[in-house]
Amino acid sequence: MQSKKLYPPDWAFEFHGHRCPFMPIGYRMGKLALEYLEIDREKDHSLFVFPEAGIGHPQICFIDGIQAATGATYGKSLIEKTFYGKLAAVFYHVRFLEKGAIRYALKSDFMDAMGKFEFFNYRKRGVEPSQIPQKVSDKVINWVYEQNDDFMFNIKPIYDFKFSPPRGSFNKAKCSLCGEYVFERYLRTEDGKPVCISCSGYGK
Amino acid sequence: MQSKKLYPPDWAFEFHGHRCPFMPIGYRMGKLALEYLEIDREKDHSLFVFPEAGIGHPQICFIDGIQAATGATYGKSLIEKTFYGKLAAVFYHVRFLEKGAIRYALKSDFMDAMGKFEFFNYRKRGVEPSQIPQKVSDKVINWVYEQNDDFMFNIKPIYDFKFSPPRGSFNKAKCSLCGEYVFERYLRTEDGKPVCISCSGYGK
Repeated sequence: MQSKKLYPPDWAFEFHGHRCPFMPIGYRMGKLALEYLEIDREKDHSLFVFPEAGIGHPQICFIDGIQAATGATYGKSLIEKTFYGKLAAVFYHVRFLEKGAIRYALKSDFMDAMGKFEFFNYRKRGVEPSQIPQKVSDKVINWVYEQNDDFMFNIKPIYDFKFSPPRGSFNKAKCSLCGEYVFERYLRTEDGKPVCISCSGYGK
Repeated sequence: MQSKKLYPPDWAFEFHGHRCPFMPIGYRMGKLALEYLEIDREKDHSLFVFPEAGIGHPQICFIDGIQAATGATYGKSLIEKTFYGKLAAVFYHVRFLEKGAIRYALKSDFMDAMGKFEFFNYRKRGVEPSQIPQKVSDKVINWVYEQNDDFMFNIKPIYDFKFSPPRGSFNKAKCSLCGEYVFERYLRTEDGKPVCISCSGYGK
């Protein structure tokens, strides 16, 4: 059994919305990354996470575990999928350049072993996670809790990781058509007047 | 004073990482949208939210409030920024087509009134939210709690909103170079063999 500090708190399950094994897996990834980078949970805007997941595939729930564990949330623009279709993530902190970044990827053998649990039979039949009997979900979640980090993760420091957070600005102006505020980076111009992207029809 | 059901629970502040007025604003947007769409907090994968925020501008913290209130989380692929640079969001539920979607946008007058609070002087000087004295943060948060929805939001139903969630597949295969699993949508081919995007060098 792993240390309980690697288990998500109840509020992380409430945030996520259902019981599945991937949120707790992401939570553990996140806690291990904080430990490696020797940082606390991110309160503000210095830790960036790049989960290598995409769209149209399952098991990306690990990203909610990462948000919960690390504080690198989507609402703080600290987490961004790379769209590689992998169950992996890179963690990078702007103030710990000498340590570089760290990548955690689920091992194939771990994924194969986990895939044998009944939970996935339900999922492949199209049953949504909240509709799977809790004893079925908890069986695979508890199994995950019991596994060692070594069996679960390939862990690789990346010393030459490059990332620059975008330059920020508080400046904003009103769209001359709809009157709504737009931050300057996204202001467009039409007939010499400031417009928002929606009113402009430029699409982006 | 607004109904306390529109206040974020303590865990939402813990999730977000700091005390600022925007997480609670997004939380209220989300609760109001659930009420309008007559749905519960999303447990699985049916509610989609499109916040009209982008990068390089402040105040996107409202997105974490939306995640907390609605269950439309980044880790379930239910929330996606449009990169319009606006403090607005569209909420769309796949099973409530007759109601269409609903858009909430912060009113300019509300933003102007809120912008006068001391909290923003700190932010514009570059002080991170967690470093702002709590009495300063709480002053603007409590003011937000006291405002009426009418003063805060432009609310607009969108009857012709179009969105199709991506087709999903559980199929995956190992990259012939690194050996890691890749979901099929993201498998690429090099010299006739399956490779992941990272190993392929194709970039995407």
